[in-house]
Amino acid sequence: MAIKTWTILDHPRHEFRGDLAIGPGDIDASIATHFRIAKRTLRGGLSDRVDVIEVDNGRVTFTVLPTRGMGIGRLSLNAAGDIGWHSPIRGPVHPQFVNLADPSGLGWLDGFDEFLCRCGLESNGAPHFDDKGHVKYPLHGKIANRPAHRVEIGYDTSAGEIIITGEASETRFLVQNLRLTTTIRTKPGELALRIRDEVTNDASTSATAQLLYHINFGGTLLDAGSKVVAPVKTLVPRNDHAAKSIERWDHYAAAEPGFAEQVYLFELLADANGRTRSLLRNAHGTLGASVLFDTKQLPCFTLWKNTGALSDGYVTGLEPGTNYPNPRSFEEKHGRVIRLKPGETRAFDVAIELHPDQPSVRAAEAEVQKLQASAKSTIHPAPQPTWCA
Amino acid sequence: MAIKTWTILDHPRHEFRGDLAIGPGDIDASIATHFRIAKRTLRGGLSDRVDVIEVDNGRVTFTVLPTRGMGIGRLSLNAAGDIGWHSPIRGPVHPQFVNLADPSGLGWLDGFDEFLCRCGLESNGAPHFDDKGHVKYPLHGKIANRPAHRVEIGYDTSAGEIIITGEASETRFLVQNLRLTTTIRTKPGELALRIRDEVTNDASTSATAQLLYHINFGGTLLDAGSKVVAPVKTLVPRNDHAAKSIERWDHYAAAEPGFAEQVYLFELLADANGRTRSLLRNAHGTLGASVLFDTKQLPCFTLWKNTGALSDGYVTGLEPGTNYPNPRSFEEKHGRVIRLKPGETRAFDVAIELHPDQPSVRAAEAEVQKLQASAKSTIHPAPQPTWCA
Amino acid sequence: MAIKTWTILDHPRHEFRGDLAIGPGDIDASIATHFRIAKRTLRGGLSDRVDVIEVDNGRVTFTVLPTRGMGIGRLSLNAAGDIGWHSPIRGPVHPQFVNLADPSGLGWLDGFDEFLCRCGLESNGAPHFDDKGHVKYPLHGKIANRPAHRVEIGYDTSAGEIIITGEASETRFLVQNLRLTTTIRTKPGELALRIRDEVTNDASTSATAQLLYHINFGGTLLDAGSKVVAPVKTLVPRNDHAAKSIERWDHYAAAEPGFAEQVYLFELLADANGRTRSLLRNAHGTLGASVLFDTKQLPCFTLWKNTGALSDGYVTGLEPGTNYPNPRSFEEKHGRVIRLKPGETRAFDVAIELHPDQPSVRAAEAEVQKLQASAKSTIHPAPQPTWCA
Repeated sequence: MAIKTWTILDHPRHEFRGDLAIGPGDIDASIATHFRIAKRTLRGGLSDRVDVIEVDNGRVTFTVLPTRGMGIGRLSLNAAGDIGWHSPIRGPVHPQFVNLADPSGLGWLDGFDEFLCRCGLESNGAPHFDDKGHVKYPLHGKIANRPAHRVEIGYDTSAGEIIITGEASETRFLVQNLRLTTTIRTKPGELALRIRDEVTNDASTSATAQLLYHINFGGTLLDAGSKVVAPVKTLVPRNDHAAKSIERWDHYAAAEPGFAEQVYLFELLADANGRTRSLLRNAHGTLGASVLFDTKQLPCFTLWKNTGALSDGYVTGLEPGTNYPNPRSFEEKHGRVIRLKPGETRAFDVAIELHPDQPSVRAAEAEVQKLQASAKSTIHPAPQPTWCA
Repeated sequence: MAIKTWTILDHPRHEFRGDLAIGPGDIDASIATHFRIAKRTLRGGLSDRVDVIEVDNGRVTFTVLPTRGMGIGRLSLNAAGDIGWHSPIRGPVHPQFVNLADPSGLGWLDGFDEFLCRCGLESNGAPHFDDKGHVKYPLHGKIANRPAHRVEIGYDTSAGEIIITGEASETRFLVQNLRLTTTIRTKPGELALRIRDEVTNDASTSATAQLLYHINFGGTLLDAGSKVVAPVKTLVPRNDHAAKSIERWDHYAAAEPGFAEQVYLFELLADANGRTRSLLRNAHGTLGASVLFDTKQLPCFTLWKNTGALSDGYVTGLEPGTNYPNPRSFEEKHGRVIRLKPGETRAFDVAIELHPDQPSVRAAEAEVQKLQASAKSTIHPAPQPTWCA
Repeated sequence: MAIKTWTILDHPRHEFRGDLAIGPGDIDASIATHFRIAKRTLRGGLSDRVDVIEVDNGRVTFTVLPTRGMGIGRLSLNAAGDIGWHSPIRGPVHPQFVNLADPSGLGWLDGFDEFLCRCGLESNGAPHFDDKGHVKYPLHGKIANRPAHRVEIGYDTSAGEIIITGEASETRFLVQNLRLTTTIRTKPGELALRIRDEVTNDASTSATAQLLYHINFGGTLLDAGSKVVAPVKTLVPRNDHAAKSIERWDHYAAAEPGFAEQVYLFELLADANGRTRSLLRNAHGTLGASVLFDTKQLPCFTLWKNTGALSDGYVTGLEPGTNYPNPRSFEEKHGRVIRLKPGETRAFDVAIELHPDQPSVRAAEAEVQKLQASAKSTIHPAPQPTWCA
C-alpha cells in the first residue's frame, strides 16, 4: 500500500497546516477522475476558527470537521444537491459557542447542524440529571464538541482512495481517557463514503462508553412521501406520541410547523456477518441514500422523524448506535454500554451510499427486502419498558 | 439611494474581511468632512479574536462590536473624551471568556464593559432560577455574547451617511430562533448616532422576546452634581434601598467606594408619536447626552445609578426596554414580554445625541420640559408590587 | 538596572506581538552563554490559540503560558529531560475548552497539564457547593484559565538575567477585582527559576484571596524509590486512605494502575527569615529538584502523591499555599484566607532549583536537614479536624 499523506494537524509535534488544496495532479498526473480535497479555517460568526476539510470525489461532496470531533458537516450529490439537512443553526459551530454545562442539559442543541454527528463517547443519549437535578451527562455527550488533535489527508495510490483520518478524545484527568480514531474513505467517482471508527480506552483502568451516529437527511432527498426502508426485526415507539403514528412509521409527511418529533427504536435484521442496510428514498423513488453498518458493533437503531417547518429543520435521522438514546443510567441498567478494558479498542464501521436514480434506489430496496425475508417484523404498538426510559 | 458597501462578514458565503480602513477618499474625493471607519481584530487577553469596527465621524467616535452582538463598545466626543464609562473589566471581552452557565446566573458580569449593551433576546433581566435553584435565564440574556453572522459597512452617498449593519441570533434547535438585525447610522460631523434594531422570530412557531438597551454613561460626562433630566409620568424605586434616596433620584454624587447600586423604574411621557428623550448632563451643564426612543416600542425606562469608586466603574445607565429588568417570570406575569408570530419582526429605534456645550444642553433640557408639560409626575415613595419583583 | 524589553501583549494599547525569537545576539554580542527565548501561538486541538513563551537558558528549558494565567507549562533539565510530569491531557489547553461551570465542580481537570499551575485567586481548593448542591467555587479556582492581559520579555543586562513578566486578573463587575502580577527570572546557565508573584486587590472594597502553587514533578525525576525530603514541623494525612500509608509518606512506589491519590498536609520548618526548602530526588539520588518558598507568605504545604499508571499521569505535587486545598468555606472558617484591603498587594516568592547530580542532591538534602535540626517532627497518624475538611 502506497499512501501519500498531508499532515493537517499533529498536536504532539505542534504541526498545523493552513489552507490547502489537493487534486489529481498532486498525486499522479495520470489520474483521470476529477477530485478535489481542500482544507481551510472559517472566520466569523459561530464558525470562527472551525477547520473544514472539503472532499469532492467528482460525484459526491462532503465536509469533515476536525474542530467538531471529525463529524461530517455536509453531504451532497453533485448532480442533485444537499442530501443532508438544513439546520436553522448557522454552523458549523465552534465548540467555544456550545455550552455543555448549560443547566438544561441541552447546550448541545446550539451547535447541531451536521449531516453526521457522533454522539458519545462517555454518554450519547438524553440528558441525565442527578437527584438534585444537576446535569451529569448532557444531551448527546461531548465528542462532537471536542477538537481533533491529529488530522491527516491521504491518498492510497494502490486502492485509488481518498483517506481522511483524525483523532479526538474525551480526557478528564483522573476520571476518563477515551479516544476516537476515525478513518473516512471514498474513491474518486464513488457514490459512497465509508467510515471506520475506533474507540480506545487510554486509561489504565476499565471504562464504559457509548456511541451513536446521528445521521441526518433532508435537503433534496427528504420530501412529502419519502419512505424509510429497513429490515425490521423489532420496532418500538419511544413514547405515546410516536405510538400514535406507528402505522405510518416509515412514511414522511410534508413540512408541518410545530410538528413534535417522533422517535422509533429498532432491532434490525442483518446478514450472516451482521451487516445491515437501511434506506431513505424520496417520494418518486428517484433518489435515495443507504446507511450500512454492522449489528454486532451497533446493535441498536433509532429513527428520528422531525418533519417540522423547513426553516426549523425538516429532517430525519437514521441512527445506528451501541444503544438507544435514553439517559445513560437507563441504558446502563439494561446493559447497553460498551465495556472497555485498559487499552482496549472497539471498532465501528458505518457507510453511506447514495442512489442517484430509480434503478439504484430499487437495487438498494431489494437488498433490504432480502434481509427482511429472513424473519417477520415484530411491531410493538406501544413503548416497551426495557427500551424506553 | 446609492449605497457603497463593504462586506465584513457574510457567514452563509463564508466571507470574512481582515483589517480595513475607509475614509472620504474611498467614497468620493469631493467629501469635505473628515471621517474614518476602521475594522480590525484584537489579539490577546480577554479581547482575543474580538472584531471591532471603529467609526470616527469627525466629531464623535464609537466602536461597534460584531463579536459581542453588535454592541457599542466605546463612545466619545472627540473634543471632550469618553462619554461612556470605564469598566474595571479589561474588554471588549470575547464570549469564549463569558460563561453564561455559571450557576450564580451572573456570568454576564465577566464581560460587561460596553457603552451600549443590548440585553435580550430571550430574556433581559435579573437571573431567573427554577424551583431547584438552577439558573434558567441568566442575567441580561445571551445576545451580547453572540457573534454576528453578517456585518456590512456602508456609505449612503445620497444621505451622506455612514451605515453599519449586522445580524446576530439566539438559535437553539427545536427551542427558539430569534434574530437581531441592527442598522447604526451617523453622518460625518453629526453629534449623534441612530440605531434601528429589528427582532425577528425565524421559527415557524410563535415566540416571546425581551429587549433592553443598557446605555452606560461615565467618562468625562458623569461627575458629582450631574443630573438626569427625564419627562416622568411615573417613577418607582426598585427596592427599599433605592426608595431611601428617592428625593435625589435625578442627582449624582461623587464616587463613593462601596456604593450600593440604586435602580429606579419609569414610565416616561412622550410626544404624540411616542417619541421621548432623557438627558444626562454634567454638573456645570456644559456637556450632555440624550437617549431618544419610542415609548410605543420601548414602554419601560430604567435608571441605574452606580456611582461607586472610579476604579470599580463609576457609571449610570439610562435603559429603555420592552420591560423592566426583573426576572423573566415576573415580567411575563405582568405582560411585559413581546409576542412574535412566526416570521414576525418588531422594530426598535434608539438614538444617542451628544450636547457639547451649554446652549445644546439647555436646548435638550427644554425639549424634555416640553414633554413634561403635558402631565404631572407621579413619584412613588416605595416599591410597587406590579413593578418590582 | 538596564533592562531591554520586548512587549508581547499590552491589552490597554491593543499591542500584540506574533512569533518572536531572542538570543544573546539580540542583547549583546559579547554574551558567551547560549540562551534562547521564543514566543509562538499554537494551533489546533485543545491548544488552539494558546500563546507559549519558551525559555532555554542553556541548561534548563521551561515554557510560560500567558493564555493560562502565566503558568509554567513544561520544565526540563536539558541534560536529563522533563522534570515535570506527563499529563494524559493533550495540552496546553486553551481556556475555551475548560468549562469551570461544569456542575461537578471538576471542569478544571480538563485543562490540567502544567508543571506549575497556580490555584486561586478567589479560591484554590476542592469544589465548594452551596446547600442546593450548586458549585460555588469550582476545583482550584479560575486563575489558571484566565489569559494574561500584559506580557513582557526582558533581559536585565546588569544582572545578566532573563525576565518574563505578566499580569492576569479575576474580575467580575460589582463582585471582585483581583490581579496577579508575576515575574519569572532565570540567568543563562542557571539551574533554577525564581518566581515573584503579587496579588493585588484592585477593588475599592476589601477582598479575600487564596493562592496555591500546584508544582507537579514526574518525567525523568520521579521513579520507584524516589523520595521527598522536607523539614517537617507537623504532618497530617488528609484522610483515612492517606493515613494508611503514613509510614511511607516520603517514599514513592512504582506506577500502579488505579492508585488512589494520597495527600499529606504540612507545616514546615524554616530559617529565621521564613525561608524553607523541600526536595524531591530520584531513587539513586542522582537527580533532584527543590521547591523554595517563604513560610511567612505561604504557611501551608501540601504533598500530593499520585503514582498511578504512567499513561494516567504518574506525578507528585509539592504545593506551597496560603492554605490547604480544602473547600474555601472550611479554610475560611479556620482563618486560612488572605485579607486584602482596597489596593493592597501581597507578594509571594517561589523558586525551583534543579540538582543534576549526586553532589548537588546531597547538598540540597543537607540544607533540609539543617532546617529539620531546629525541631522534631510531629506526625499525626490520622486526619485532624482543623486541617481536614
